[in-house]
Amino acid sequence: MILVVKSGGEAALPEWQDCFAKAAPGLELRWWDDPSLDPARVGYALVWDPEPGRLARMTGLRAIFGSGAGVDLITADPLLPRHLPLVRCVPPEATQRMGEFVCWAVLSLAKDARRMAMAQARREWDYFEAPFAASARTVGVMGLGAMGMRSVEMLRGLSIPVVGWSRTPKALPGVETFAGADGLPAFLARSEVLVCLLPATPETKGIVAAPLLSRLPRGAGLVQVGRGVQQVLPDIIAALDEGRLSAAVIDVFEPEPLSPDSPAWTHPRLTVTPHVASLPSRMERARYVAGCIARLERGEALPNLYDHARGY
Amino acid sequence: MILVVKSGGEAALPEWQDCFAKAAPGLELRWWDDPSLDPARVGYALVWDPEPGRLARMTGLRAIFGSGAGVDLITADPLLPRHLPLVRCVPPEATQRMGEFVCWAVLSLAKDARRMAMAQARREWDYFEAPFAASARTVGVMGLGAMGMRSVEMLRGLSIPVVGWSRTPKALPGVETFAGADGLPAFLARSEVLVCLLPATPETKGIVAAPLLSRLPRGAGLVQVGRGVQQVLPDIIAALDEGRLSAAVIDVFEPEPLSPDSPAWTHPRLTVTPHVASLPSRMERARYVAGCIARLERGEALPNLYDHARGY
Repeated sequence: MILVVKSGGEAALPEWQDCFAKAAPGLELRWWDDPSLDPARVGYALVWDPEPGRLARMTGLRAIFGSGAGVDLITADPLLPRHLPLVRCVPPEATQRMGEFVCWAVLSLAKDARRMAMAQARREWDYFEAPFAASARTVGVMGLGAMGMRSVEMLRGLSIPVVGWSRTPKALPGVETFAGADGLPAFLARSEVLVCLLPATPETKGIVAAPLLSRLPRGAGLVQVGRGVQQVLPDIIAALDEGRLSAAVIDVFEPEPLSPDSPAWTHPRLTVTPHVASLPSRMERARYVAGCIARLERGEALPNLYDHARGY
Repeated sequence: MILVVKSGGEAALPEWQDCFAKAAPGLELRWWDDPSLDPARVGYALVWDPEPGRLARMTGLRAIFGSGAGVDLITADPLLPRHLPLVRCVPPEATQRMGEFVCWAVLSLAKDARRMAMAQARREWDYFEAPFAASARTVGVMGLGAMGMRSVEMLRGLSIPVVGWSRTPKALPGVETFAGADGLPAFLARSEVLVCLLPATPETKGIVAAPLLSRLPRGAGLVQVGRGVQQVLPDIIAALDEGRLSAAVIDVFEPEPLSPDSPAWTHPRLTVTPHVASLPSRMERARYVAGCIARLERGEALPNLYDHARGY
């Protein structure tokens, strides 16, 4: 059975081959643009950003695996075979890594790590006293999927108070939660640090913008680890300059890579990271995909299926 | 009753006065170098780095409060009145802040935050995949006082495996611990990230040097939040260059401030922070000192007393 891969560039193919040689020795791994590849013989695809129409030509395809948790660059294909299972890549390591990144970002805001990094670049001993411990500010986690839930658990493991918001009501032991459009203003008013962990859907496009930011407590922090299309970057920068936001960590941009001309790079209270929040290693992803293929071949249900109606 | 203050420079006096006006309205706050101050009338001192001999001239002194958790700059005074209680400043906020800093530093090593900060300074989208989740590497916490214990709890709250080492045996539920000189090699061999949280004593001077580093697993990370005199910085830099250490976060130096000429500032795998790991705010410290003074005046025992025999 052939698994075709398009993720990480062709230079990543040998590493993918090594990983799958361990995780699923029976699979034949081929690169997406391999000229000798017969599309009709492909059984599975592991892709991040397939060119539109290409998957539809793979007539023997049984399932499509996204190589990340978000599959918006796959569902953007108007010819995507929507009858096939489309599996989001959410191995346990991805939720752990996301929780770690969220904790790192929340702690970076409390410690003013951006100020320390800029001082190091100037070789300057810029001593200052951080006004609050991280545990003195409530973190609002917007989006309570597998990654949001894990982030809540880990923040609480640091004794940081947390509130949560999701589209549909969710109960989390020991955490106050809010739901839907009606619950959003009260949730935002409580969020001294807002963590955006929403999926990319038509509803969340442009949501992190002036109207939402204006509902946060003055001087709030922002951590954006959803998708770049969800934010209006000039609104975030204006909120930082105006004092509405005290600082932000942004991991996702539209488009990516972020242009070298973007004012985000040099803003003294904005930390830019290159879309690294939750990516599990290739070995971890290969193990996950191999496990899914084994379940599929045994006729079992798959986890983390994309729902075309819901949009995530 | 007069409380004399030498911490944070004279510019900090108005803030100290505001804090103590709330925490202990009966105290009269005076600056250390106030020419109108009669040393014989001083009842309490809150100091970081008192000039040698000065405390001995305050003949009515009842207790000395350090303004940080470490009091080595106070005990360095050969004329220090050793019969008086010397109280280390360890309010609950200090242990929480230290735990937060340790978690931030351990996560910064796992995410390679130094690489991301350098890329941001160059406005470069330097995408890379971190080889491990933080939870894939065992953290060894060296020093299990109040701050070490809290750091262990918080690291475990992130699902990071932890081992501990202390001078005398200590039992921590769910954590393997090692003790004394005999236990050190086995502890170091297990520490894929070493966190140094030791007090400054004659025994710990220069301990973070080549012989200790050579016992860590190859490619280990290092977080140094003890005291600068404990490390041999050229040995740490050599270990980074040689690959013995993969990366380090160092918050303490000898002397401080770190000289602008130090090679530490520009090393691509060394994060320099300006001795900020655990400092609670002035309000938090004023509340703690006020609480200690109230206990003393009621004839109750004090917490966190410095032990001259033990050296911390």
